[in-house]
Amino acid sequence: MVQAYILIQTEVGKASTVAEVIAKIPGVIQAEDVTGPYDVIVRAQADTVDDLGRMVVAKVQQVEGITRTLTCPVVHL
Amino acid sequence: MVQAYILIQTEVGKASTVAEVIAKIPGVIQAEDVTGPYDVIVRAQADTVDDLGRMVVAKVQQVEGITRTLTCPVVHL
Amino acid sequence: MVQAYILIQTEVGKASTVAEVIAKIPGVIQAEDVTGPYDVIVRAQADTVDDLGRMVVAKVQQVEGITRTLTCPVVHL
Amino acid sequence: MVQAYILIQTEVGKASTVAEVIAKIPGVIQAEDVTGPYDVIVRAQADTVDDLGRMVVAKVQQVEGITRTLTCPVVHL
Amino acid sequence: MVQAYILIQTEVGKASTVAEVIAKIPGVIQAEDVTGPYDVIVRAQADTVDDLGRMVVAKVQQVEGITRTLTCPVVHL
Amino acid sequence: MVQAYILIQTEVGKASTVAEVIAKIPGVIQAEDVTGPYDVIVRAQADTVDDLGRMVVAKVQQVEGITRTLTCPVVHL
Amino acid sequence: MVQAYILIQTEVGKASTVAEVIAKIPGVIQAEDVTGPYDVIVRAQADTVDDLGRMVVAKVQQVEGITRTLTCPVVHL
Amino acid sequence: MVQAYILIQTEVGKASTVAEVIAKIPGVIQAEDVTGPYDVIVRAQADTVDDLGRMVVAKVQQVEGITRTLTCPVVHL
Repeated sequence: MVQAYILIQTEVGKASTVAEVIAKIPGVIQAEDVTGPYDVIVRAQADTVDDLGRMVVAKVQQVEGITRTLTCPVVHL
Repeated sequence: MVQAYILIQTEVGKASTVAEVIAKIPGVIQAEDVTGPYDVIVRAQADTVDDLGRMVVAKVQQVEGITRTLTCPVVHL
Repeated sequence: MVQAYILIQTEVGKASTVAEVIAKIPGVIQAEDVTGPYDVIVRAQADTVDDLGRMVVAKVQQVEGITRTLTCPVVHL
Repeated sequence: MVQAYILIQTEVGKASTVAEVIAKIPGVIQAEDVTGPYDVIVRAQADTVDDLGRMVVAKVQQVEGITRTLTCPVVHL
Repeated sequence: MVQAYILIQTEVGKASTVAEVIAKIPGVIQAEDVTGPYDVIVRAQADTVDDLGRMVVAKVQQVEGITRTLTCPVVHL
Repeated sequence: MVQAYILIQTEVGKASTVAEVIAKIPGVIQAEDVTGPYDVIVRAQADTVDDLGRMVVAKVQQVEGITRTLTCPVVHL
Repeated sequence: MVQAYILIQTEVGKASTVAEVIAKIPGVIQAEDVTGPYDVIVRAQADTVDDLGRMVVAKVQQVEGITRTLTCPVVHL
Repeated sequence: MVQAYILIQTEVGKASTVAEVIAKIPGVIQAEDVTGPYDVIVRAQADTVDDLGRMVVAKVQQVEGITRTLTCPVVHL
């Protein structure tokens, strides 16, 4: 199982809607609005890094109003 | 009361208009054009961090010509 | 109550130790190692934005091996 | 007269002291701690851009604990 | 002969298609999807720096869905 | 007299045209295509910082294909 | 098997030595000097994301002269 | 012949000295202090990209007080 934070930038004025929609995607644990260089921070999980990449591209990035996503896989050192 | 600087990037050619419009938003203390990686720097205040977030999303980011805002809350250490 | 993500960059080779030490700071809910532009992502909470700022400066940033922290307060829009 | 915002990054744990020291430099109007990618935001003024550059290098950057400064001159468009 | 890595950001949801299309451009050795601040990393070669620049502008950047490219020429020190 | 470098990012595929058009703007001394995080680097001059800001907003940023400009005034320390 | 690009920033003047040393680390396929915002680009592989993270922290980041590493796992979408 | 801009960040308080020293390096055409995210902008030339890379690493980066250099080769599209 791979977990990751996804740091998201949205179009201006879209942060709230983006977080609500992402929160309903299977594999997403939490999606919250934040201030600072990112607008939404998401916690998600998938079986493999490839599955995670596919979830981001096929599900998260399809959400209307997202301009950039930055996936940070959690590692257990 | 929470105060914050909002660092704003605008579409090319829109900095001047953006600053003028933002200056009239309630809660905005000052809005000025600058050179460098940001185009407009705004000083604003609200009752809470959540109110500040809502002001940025519901008022500031609705201004035509803004591409990114970066909210930096002032903290008293 | 204010919650926040703290995105942390560490000196090379220090990520694992930094996460372990931060995880024990009161107010810190979770601290994990990640890959990408940040090395550790922390979830924390405090009573006010000022308290949060003080926790970051007085507790988190005192941890040996941290080079930059980026605090992103959660907002409820 | 040229005015500018100076966005400052400090060594971890030094933001508060840096703001206090900078606030006393002649030409500095205000110096505040903030959260986000910058640690201190300063408002300053000088007679010319060259004077402003000299103030930043000779006075502001001499303050113990500063790692980067980003000067954003205010422009009247 | 000049070789280079080209770090590419794509529109959300376009990374996979972009990598496939770029992989077929003459002079491109490899094009792969990655996670993090870039979406696709390309390895390419050309006769001179000018030829490399022309390839990036005339071929790579014409691919639908690319928003930014960052060319990093390999140097032999 | 104020001189400045203007670091420009363009839409993909537009760097060459942007440099050609900017080179003809009064006050622009040189405009060249580069590789790396910027696409065009311009050298310009104006009577004051305000005039420089106006030239960037009113002339340079009006050129079709520019997405971001970063003005770096030259200072004589 | 997980593959990744590791984008590395080095202390000034250390790029060449860093690339040579990293090239000998088991799991590293290639390490080259580049110009631009990064100084060395490495291609590496490991069994899992966790193994990759450990290799970066325990082997790559131990190399004298590295200031930042940015790991970009390859994903097959 | 390859020409390039070298965008330089210096330790705080060192910009002026760095520019003076770099201006005397063979192959350097001009070195000036600027405000903004960079502290010194250099114009240089060399016979090849590899020579340029060597000049930056062996000469420019040896100058006391430099923390980062970003080389942007000029391309003729």
